[in-house]
Amino acid sequence: MQVHDLLTDAVEASRTLQAVSGETTATILENVAQTLLENTPLILEANAKDLAAMSPDDPKFDRLKLTPERIAGIAADMRSVASLPYPVGNVLSNELRPNGMSVRKVSVPFGVIGIIYEARPNVTCDVFALCLRSGNACVLKGGSDAYYSNMALVTIIRWILAKYWVNPAVCTLLPADRASATALLNASGLVDLIIPRGSSELISFVRSNSKIPVIETGAGICHTYFDKGADRDKGRAIIHNAKTRRVSVCNALDCLLVHRERLEDLPYICADLAESQVVIYADNAAYEALEGHYPSSLLQHALPESYGTEFLDYKMSLRTVADINEAIAHISRYGSRHSECIISESLDMIRLFEQAIDAACVYANVSTAFTDGAQFGMGSEIGISTQKLHARGPMSLNELVTYKYIIEGSGQVRPS
Amino acid sequence: MQVHDLLTDAVEASRTLQAVSGETTATILENVAQTLLENTPLILEANAKDLAAMSPDDPKFDRLKLTPERIAGIAADMRSVASLPYPVGNVLSNELRPNGMSVRKVSVPFGVIGIIYEARPNVTCDVFALCLRSGNACVLKGGSDAYYSNMALVTIIRWILAKYWVNPAVCTLLPADRASATALLNASGLVDLIIPRGSSELISFVRSNSKIPVIETGAGICHTYFDKGADRDKGRAIIHNAKTRRVSVCNALDCLLVHRERLEDLPYICADLAESQVVIYADNAAYEALEGHYPSSLLQHALPESYGTEFLDYKMSLRTVADINEAIAHISRYGSRHSECIISESLDMIRLFEQAIDAACVYANVSTAFTDGAQFGMGSEIGISTQKLHARGPMSLNELVTYKYIIEGSGQVRPS
Repeated sequence: MQVHDLLTDAVEASRTLQAVSGETTATILENVAQTLLENTPLILEANAKDLAAMSPDDPKFDRLKLTPERIAGIAADMRSVASLPYPVGNVLSNELRPNGMSVRKVSVPFGVIGIIYEARPNVTCDVFALCLRSGNACVLKGGSDAYYSNMALVTIIRWILAKYWVNPAVCTLLPADRASATALLNASGLVDLIIPRGSSELISFVRSNSKIPVIETGAGICHTYFDKGADRDKGRAIIHNAKTRRVSVCNALDCLLVHRERLEDLPYICADLAESQVVIYADNAAYEALEGHYPSSLLQHALPESYGTEFLDYKMSLRTVADINEAIAHISRYGSRHSECIISESLDMIRLFEQAIDAACVYANVSTAFTDGAQFGMGSEIGISTQKLHARGPMSLNELVTYKYIIEGSGQVRPS
Repeated sequence: MQVHDLLTDAVEASRTLQAVSGETTATILENVAQTLLENTPLILEANAKDLAAMSPDDPKFDRLKLTPERIAGIAADMRSVASLPYPVGNVLSNELRPNGMSVRKVSVPFGVIGIIYEARPNVTCDVFALCLRSGNACVLKGGSDAYYSNMALVTIIRWILAKYWVNPAVCTLLPADRASATALLNASGLVDLIIPRGSSELISFVRSNSKIPVIETGAGICHTYFDKGADRDKGRAIIHNAKTRRVSVCNALDCLLVHRERLEDLPYICADLAESQVVIYADNAAYEALEGHYPSSLLQHALPESYGTEFLDYKMSLRTVADINEAIAHISRYGSRHSECIISESLDMIRLFEQAIDAACVYANVSTAFTDGAQFGMGSEIGISTQKLHARGPMSLNELVTYKYIIEGSGQVRPS
């Protein structure tokens, strides 16, 4: 079947989804979750075929690998999405105009959402759950590495959809080749929104080639500023957590900015980082402050490229600033507008930082590791937007709907 | 000065705008409006230079032409924007998480908004007013036809900005050449949003060439469906108003769909259209129903291309449908998701239509001519979005802001 035909079917299916109640979408997700659990052996068998084609040394191997525990996690996440409030049909505003017509703004699904991602089978289920629960059809273009795993998961999903008389094309898996991706990115008029999930190369490819609106997710170059009036214990804990909780995630700390009057606190603040074997690329002043207190094997001089780098590793840059304005200027220049933090006990400095920093998430005395849909109380997330159009930061059900205006009257016409 | 430098200045200026109060933006707009009025002769002189270079037969001539009345209209619109609520700093949600951190979602300006438009000097002032009132800097790429007019208007604007100690680069006029447009569309990281205003060629050029998120405005292929249970007087008035109030606008009626059991009402419904010299392209059944009742010089047989066409003229297509489902299917296939209307006294049919039609504005017994920011109570509009991402339908101040999350705590870290 041609990709164009698959997309046309998905559009058709998305329209029939309008007539499916929020309650039914929840029931379907509960049922899919249960069926995934019951078919764990079948899913693992398909996954084993994919794994057999990949070297265990490949960094993608662990992401691709499914286990009974991971399948249980996928099912639990799906149930959690089922329990979230249904975001469709909310009246966002309702105004009676002077001429007697009412103008009602109501949340509605996008229609068809395309996702392009790499070898992570859990994304298949996460995306399907969030899209169905927000009334959208999803078109999935997964990585060829996960072909058999995705086929098994989508087969189970579509089986349950059919059982509830929902057109299975609301969950459409495209062939895992480059041609599908190209066809998807060009499907203007059929697909309403594209969300890429994966490496920065993938996201850049999508941004450059899509004729459809894209929500960019991903890259986070995150800073924490240790202010003149900072509490050093809070700082030590936050900085260590933001850097080392999981180094491979987008909200991890990349650059610590320290007020020059607090340089003498650096050995104390960085003690936990040393224990976690974090390499620090420090400017001269910070290097001098740490020298003799931080393992010399882990302490290096910062190079120009140490700033504005997303390390995704046990590495961090460190720069001394004269004041909060210099910290703000540094972040404006090098940040990716993802998650930025100030550590300070001064309410004035906190307010200034919160106002001046242009980022999806601005933290005061909290670790940037919290930039996550579940941590924000959204239940689950489809990604973290790093753009400003439509949605910013963690995106969940409310970010997967748009709206329409419904205007009702009794024959009103507009005077010239 | 290079375009890149102008854009960098605009970014810098947009940051300083954070410290300008909503009250000050209103005062500035009031003052600009007054100064425009006082300098009417100077503006008309500049406009005359532009007009001298254009043939009065050019359809753009009338749009380009300024008069004392039009300048008064521009000033009045600017005052009306000044009086709208300031959309920045609204707390959209505020949640205290179980770990004691608060997550506050706050509306913030985009930063720098780029507008690409054609020979309409009033757009220069409208866009500046809406952008300033929403805390954004605007970068204007106007048509070369309006060069002197735009220069005069922007000079006045910047003069008043400077008077209030606001960096004049918050209103930046780019050179009116193609190279500027290209530089603007590639200014990823400097410009946050692009809104094209003008012909479908212009919009298509922007969509294909922008590396920056775009909000599409424009094309409206609008339908009105006259249902089996429609009131013929309401229908006659609404159809005539939607078609003829202003044929050159995007919300004008392009195609009338009529239930086959109401064909005999067509002569009555279309009587006013005949008076307004509207050419009708009718399918066979409708043609037969109108023949002898509608001027034969204005009645033609529909061709396949009669459907899905935005006429922008005293022309309209007309198709007979078997039922509401056929009407919905026709609109889904041919509409541009702008404004669609049902005329019916049946609440069931109205509800079905409202739910099934995927469009920015869905009308029941009201003319589509109301798709307009001012008519919806938004005060003014920067355009009518025909996409689903971020904003749909008329866009005003609330659609020119994004948001950020501000997370405050007392040292919270995230457990692994």
